[in-house]
Formats: sequence, structure tokens, C-alpha cells
Amino acid sequence: MKLFGFFRSSAAFRVRIALNLKGVAFEDAFVHLRRGDQRSEAYLAVNPQGLVPALEVGGHTLIQSMAIIEYLDETHPEPPFLPADPAERARVRALADIVACDIHPINNLRVLRYLSRPLGHDQAAIETWYNHWIASGFAALEQLLAGDRRTGDFCAGARPGLADIALAPQAFNSERYNLDLSPYPTIARIYANCMKLDAFTRAHPNNQPDRDD
Amino acid sequence: MKLFGFFRSSAAFRVRIALNLKGVAFEDAFVHLRRGDQRSEAYLAVNPQGLVPALEVGGHTLIQSMAIIEYLDETHPEPPFLPADPAERARVRALADIVACDIHPINNLRVLRYLSRPLGHDQAAIETWYNHWIASGFAALEQLLAGDRRTGDFCAGARPGLADIALAPQAFNSERYNLDLSPYPTIARIYANCMKLDAFTRAHPNNQPDRDD
Repeated sequence: MKLFGFFRSSAAFRVRIALNLKGVAFEDAFVHLRRGDQRSEAYLAVNPQGLVPALEVGGHTLIQSMAIIEYLDETHPEPPFLPADPAERARVRALADIVACDIHPINNLRVLRYLSRPLGHDQAAIETWYNHWIASGFAALEQLLAGDRRTGDFCAGARPGLADIALAPQAFNSERYNLDLSPYPTIARIYANCMKLDAFTRAHPNNQPDRDD
Repeated sequence: MKLFGFFRSSAAFRVRIALNLKGVAFEDAFVHLRRGDQRSEAYLAVNPQGLVPALEVGGHTLIQSMAIIEYLDETHPEPPFLPADPAERARVRALADIVACDIHPINNLRVLRYLSRPLGHDQAAIETWYNHWIASGFAALEQLLAGDRRTGDFCAGARPGLADIALAPQAFNSERYNLDLSPYPTIARIYANCMKLDAFTRAHPNNQPDRDD
């Protein structure tokens, strides 16, 4: 397997965690987003969307992090990323999608760049935007997690799964932008538990060979 | 089952299509997004995220449209929304997520409102923003669909599935904003095929009892 990623991309971070949790070895291919490698002819032939991650596996090129993670869960069932019961699965997928649909895409690099140019906003306005969407999503997530006895050391019980894989990179991003996590004690606790695990720390942006900040 | 929705919401439109395709009867509960019903205490008790849709089923309240649709597919297997093979499933989920993660959330009502206030953009700038993200996503989707022999009358073969359920409401939105679909002939063809089906037309915003435009 070959993973096209970038150390700082949250979506690539998710897939690295998933691969590590499943114990799947993979080769790295680095796509430097700030330098614009994702718009190169070579990378657009891999992923016409020009985003990371992409995963080459078994003659296929898979794109979209959440679809890749579901694929890994279907092809490597242990440890499972989702509970067995359909309603419980829906809960975990919904928690993950609050991050994957309603926080992360609005704060993606290409959106922040559009706010800067053509829209002309300065760094302060962009940081306010960034924290607004994290705070809005995290407030809902915190309430859903804190008020539910299915929440344990992780979003669903005692083992990390799909929701934790989505949550940890988003919590890391919020730290980078100095968002105070204290209004979200359950999120902060789960994030800390994730970061005690080798699968998460090895996937961390700071521990990637392409790190350049 | 009770579906909390709004005629104009694309995410609720998706779930209505899914329920119709599965032949599942449901009761409507209307949440008027422009009037702010989604921020009422009553609705926040249903969905702390303050977004539609939400689905009450079997003593659970499910949120996030894509998680709800996967739930419906798991609990009502016929007709299937996903192929059987994991790599094919990943392809369909990725096509769906291009819409569900990378187009729709950036153009959601709450984001457009933020552009208007506090950011102060006028209607023309907001429409340019809106069409920019649709065009960017549709260009990739068109290339992925047109260049793949797995594409048929629908995104994956001869029957509508998860990707079509995501695509049709987005194509409808692009019509509303007068986006020219002619650069995306495969998307336009699949959208037209969807709209020949009763499950899609009954779910259409124009055919909802809460329509008020």
C-alpha cells in the first residue's frame, strides 16, 4: 500500500492512524500542499480532486479519507472501528461526520486561502473563522459525548474507533490555533487517551518525515 | 420513523430519497431553517448540533445524513446502496463524500450567513463562493465518473445508490444558483436519470408540504 499524504493534513493524519491501528504496513508518498504539489499533473493523475490522502492498494487508487477508513475496516476487521449494532454504528459515524463534514472541510487549507484571496481577509479574521467552526462543532460533540453512557475512554467504549480517528486530528488542529479545549472536557479527555497510543503518536504530524515547520 | 427536515435542506433531501428507495414509510417533522427553528430549545434537545436532518427510529435519534443513510442500508438491505466489493464500496463512498464533505458543508446556509455577517460580503460575492466550490467538486466528480467504466445510468451501474443520493440534491442546488451543468455531461445525465425516478421526485424540495418559496 502507498499512502499519498502530507504531514499537516488532518485527513491524511486520520488514515495514518487507521493504518497503524490495523497494523498495516504502508509506504509514504509525500504531496507538499503548501508548495502546491497537489495541483501537479502527476498528482492529479492519482487524484483528480487534488486533495490528500489517496491510498494505492490492490490495483485501486482510493480517495476520500472516510471512505478509505471504512475500506480498511471492511478488509481488516480487527480491531473493529465500528460497533456491531446498526444504531451504534450510526452514532459513531455521526460523531465522526460532525468533524469530517461539518468542521474540517470549512477550515481546509483551500478554503482559508480563498478567504485570504480573493476575499481579502487578514490572518485575524481567518483565525476567528477557523475557531468559530471548531467551537460550533465541538460544542455539539461535547454534549453528545458527555451526555451518553456509551462514551468511555474513547467515543464508543474502551477502544478507539472511527469517531476517535476523526476527532484526534481535529483536536490537534485546535491546539495549533490556540483554541481553549477546557469547555470540552470530554473531548480533551478522549484526545489525551488517544495520544497515549502508539498508533496515534506515530501518525502525528510532528513525527512525519516530511515535516518542515 | 420520524424525519426532522426542511424542504430546502440538501441533507434532508438525501435522507428522503434514501427512505423512498428503501420503501420505508416515515412521518415528517418540519424544522424551518430560515426562521431559526433549528436553534429552538425543543429542536436542540433532538439534535444538539442544530442541523437537519435527524431521524427518530427504534428509540434512537440518529443525526448526520450520511450516517443515517448507511444505517438505512444496514437495516434495510434491499435495494443495496453500496456494491458488495470493498474497493467498489470505497469508490461509491468517495464519490458521495466529494459532495457530502467537500462541496455541501462549505455552501451550507450557516456558512453563507457567516460570509454575509460578520464578514460583510454581498450576494454577488456569496454566489461566486457558492459556485466556486460546486464547480471545483463537480470538475473532479465529472472526471472520476466519465473516465470509469463502472459508471452507468447511475454513479455505479444501473441502479441508484449512495453516490447518486448525494449527487442529485447537489445538482438541484446548482440549478437554483444558475450554475451551467454543461461542463459536467456525466453528472447532468445521471441527475436526469435520478429525476425520472419516483423515489427522487417525491423527495424533491418542490414537492414537500413545508415548501414556502
